[in-house]
Amino acid sequence: MTYDLVVIGAGPGGFDAAVEAARLGLSVALVEKDFLGGTCLNRGCIPTKLWLGATSVLEELHNQSRMKVASGEVTVDFAALQSRVQKHLAGTRKAMAMQLKKLGVELVEGFGKLGGDHLVTVETAEGEVSLEYKKLVIATGSKPIFFPGLEPDNDCVLDSDMFLSMESMPESLIVVGAGFIGLEMAQVAHRFGAKVAVVDAMDRVAPLEDPEVSKALGAVFKRWKWDVRLEERVAGVLTRDGKAELTFQSGDKLTADKALVAVGRGPVTQGIGLEEAGIEMLFNQIQVDDYLMAAPDIYAIGDANGHIQLAHAASHQAHYVALHAAGRTEAPYAAGPVPSVLYGAPEAMRVGTMENEAFLQDYDTTEVSVAQLAANPMAQAHAATQGFVKVVWSGGRVVGVTGVGHDVSRLVTPATLIVQQGWTEEDVHKTIFPHPSLDEALLMALTAERKKVQ
Amino acid sequence: MTYDLVVIGAGPGGFDAAVEAARLGLSVALVEKDFLGGTCLNRGCIPTKLWLGATSVLEELHNQSRMKVASGEVTVDFAALQSRVQKHLAGTRKAMAMQLKKLGVELVEGFGKLGGDHLVTVETAEGEVSLEYKKLVIATGSKPIFFPGLEPDNDCVLDSDMFLSMESMPESLIVVGAGFIGLEMAQVAHRFGAKVAVVDAMDRVAPLEDPEVSKALGAVFKRWKWDVRLEERVAGVLTRDGKAELTFQSGDKLTADKALVAVGRGPVTQGIGLEEAGIEMLFNQIQVDDYLMAAPDIYAIGDANGHIQLAHAASHQAHYVALHAAGRTEAPYAAGPVPSVLYGAPEAMRVGTMENEAFLQDYDTTEVSVAQLAANPMAQAHAATQGFVKVVWSGGRVVGVTGVGHDVSRLVTPATLIVQQGWTEEDVHKTIFPHPSLDEALLMALTAERKKVQ
Repeated sequence: MTYDLVVIGAGPGGFDAAVEAARLGLSVALVEKDFLGGTCLNRGCIPTKLWLGATSVLEELHNQSRMKVASGEVTVDFAALQSRVQKHLAGTRKAMAMQLKKLGVELVEGFGKLGGDHLVTVETAEGEVSLEYKKLVIATGSKPIFFPGLEPDNDCVLDSDMFLSMESMPESLIVVGAGFIGLEMAQVAHRFGAKVAVVDAMDRVAPLEDPEVSKALGAVFKRWKWDVRLEERVAGVLTRDGKAELTFQSGDKLTADKALVAVGRGPVTQGIGLEEAGIEMLFNQIQVDDYLMAAPDIYAIGDANGHIQLAHAASHQAHYVALHAAGRTEAPYAAGPVPSVLYGAPEAMRVGTMENEAFLQDYDTTEVSVAQLAANPMAQAHAATQGFVKVVWSGGRVVGVTGVGHDVSRLVTPATLIVQQGWTEEDVHKTIFPHPSLDEALLMALTAERKKVQ
Repeated sequence: MTYDLVVIGAGPGGFDAAVEAARLGLSVALVEKDFLGGTCLNRGCIPTKLWLGATSVLEELHNQSRMKVASGEVTVDFAALQSRVQKHLAGTRKAMAMQLKKLGVELVEGFGKLGGDHLVTVETAEGEVSLEYKKLVIATGSKPIFFPGLEPDNDCVLDSDMFLSMESMPESLIVVGAGFIGLEMAQVAHRFGAKVAVVDAMDRVAPLEDPEVSKALGAVFKRWKWDVRLEERVAGVLTRDGKAELTFQSGDKLTADKALVAVGRGPVTQGIGLEEAGIEMLFNQIQVDDYLMAAPDIYAIGDANGHIQLAHAASHQAHYVALHAAGRTEAPYAAGPVPSVLYGAPEAMRVGTMENEAFLQDYDTTEVSVAQLAANPMAQAHAATQGFVKVVWSGGRVVGVTGVGHDVSRLVTPATLIVQQGWTEEDVHKTIFPHPSLDEALLMALTAERKKVQ
């Protein structure tokens, strides 16, 4: 048979594309070489959130203890947590498989590659299978990348996959790379009592964020007595005598029980016949047009096209390509603002254009307005009042929102809608925000005095 | 001097009206007989949230313990908590007073009443003061009401004000009235280990909510072994031998250390010269027109006009009357959808029209779509997967959203925007929701299969 749609990769992008297309009545085959759910479910966002969720009680206790309101002792059993995580992941994969079955999507387990005109070949356990398609979606995702000298050895030097598979939490940890992945994992280690060092070549942690958000995060890490080394170039990291040993280019050294290397992720696009199919690549990223097409009848979505490395961006692209493949839309793909969240305590959130970006883009009317969390009763209730919410305005409209502090992730969806709609000052007062709520910090930032960006 | 605006009552409505008007350049006097911040700050939402926030660690620990992931013992010191609450309230009042001073608002402390044409008289500690006004805002708020036989005695029978002032938490508690106030306070008592009984004349708890939300809440309370007595008429409750004794009309009795009577709140509108000024009243509620005016040059906002007993509704009305009084708008008042939240664990949220209301309003095209929290990774991470999110559609547009379960309050602001904008199915896919997040439960409900309301 010829499938209306074949999808390679069953992460958030590929899985959603297959499901959506099947719902639209297309015949679909989904090819996956590993686990349903991809990196996000199995080795990324989800296990990290389960770790953070299970340990949030430690953070809450710490905050209330500091206020002398609560006292006590809580222990989180890492082995029990890991077993709960695995159980959850297996349960989710099972539910996903059932959903595919119910929708009539054929799941083909094995390594898939492009095999000539409208053909995908899959190396399955039972031998090679050929799938003929009318349209193809490449959703092969990404994997950790490493600079020379930083390669993980799965002994004391780990990548994020290995870190999430540990059987016990190390007592000391070096994290190379102060992006979201490294910071979330470092935070969990911290909650388990690990001594944490964070190393980055940039001049601030979370370098994709608004600089003031980075600064606020850095202040928290300092309070936690993390050893944060910025603008430091790492010569290498390796296992020596059962410890991770990091050597800076300066010759200085750091040692810890484990090192986590989280310097970035790159597309999984090699060895699957893309170049042979005439697909254009740039830094391993599949180049796509306004319809997310890499070649006639071939879409590429998610981390593989390098647009933005976020699961929800991939899912959104997936929904679009399913519609487009089914002939339900002829419009080009429109992403809209893409929200981004760092979980933990503090959290950070961002959507739209940031102050420093707005300035670079030469907006002549860029302003910012800020509200501090200290004034918010919910932040007070959780004894976590450090942080702020910042709104970026351009031409009298909201173009971006960011924030850092207790529970600010809850602001990201309303902020996404507000940026999408480009609210003016008048729009703000059309909406009733609930009281009391952390959401009011967003309202306060929207109504605070605006200052021109210097 | 003649004030452009005099405001009676410095709760969320009155305070915000005074501040907004001053910002718009009006000369303003604010009359308050008690504390700045009114019921919400001093005897209502804020202290309750501080109680819930400080004790949320107990709930988190309980959930993770049930999963055998965490173990330990946490104690919350009620006396320390109460002292922290008082400190927070005093600090907030101080900040409010400073804000008034900075804006040039004259705070007149004393009991204010209407004193003839464009005149308010205030009984202050230094004697009677007369304030001449061009426009007047009545924002006198509400207070607990009682049915005969249910009056608090401040010994073992308490109203919510007295309950919040307790020096220790009782070991057993009867709550009369299963509305939000009673349920939030009962939940705090439960966290402190109190044996809880809840009594209501209605056939379900939280009777203003969607019936399925009430049912879900009821199931949780049952799991907590609360003694929930519904459709029960209370003959009376009184203090006998140092205990609260409640007698049902059936003759049955309940006893506990304390009883909290939270059967409702009524407007504070008596004895301040409203009838004499020709203001129309209905069940003590000040009747207002489309401009929130009760008489020429006299506005009434917040609980006093009986529209909706929520602080944020009062604040929103306040913003409008300040603009209207300043001549900045001539349009009638438009509330838009008003969000409502029950805090605690579980939480409940609601905005817009509910399924049962939609049906009563004879929508011919009412549908609902539902997502269970069990499928949400953040609910899983907090081991709190009971609950759901429900979307109500009419004519193909979202008219209401409700939900119950872990952290669903975070859905209420996006839901308010969605109801306000009357999203269609197509609108849903224009927006990217962050992954993973509890917000995705709202997305799942928006995209779930719709069912006609029976």
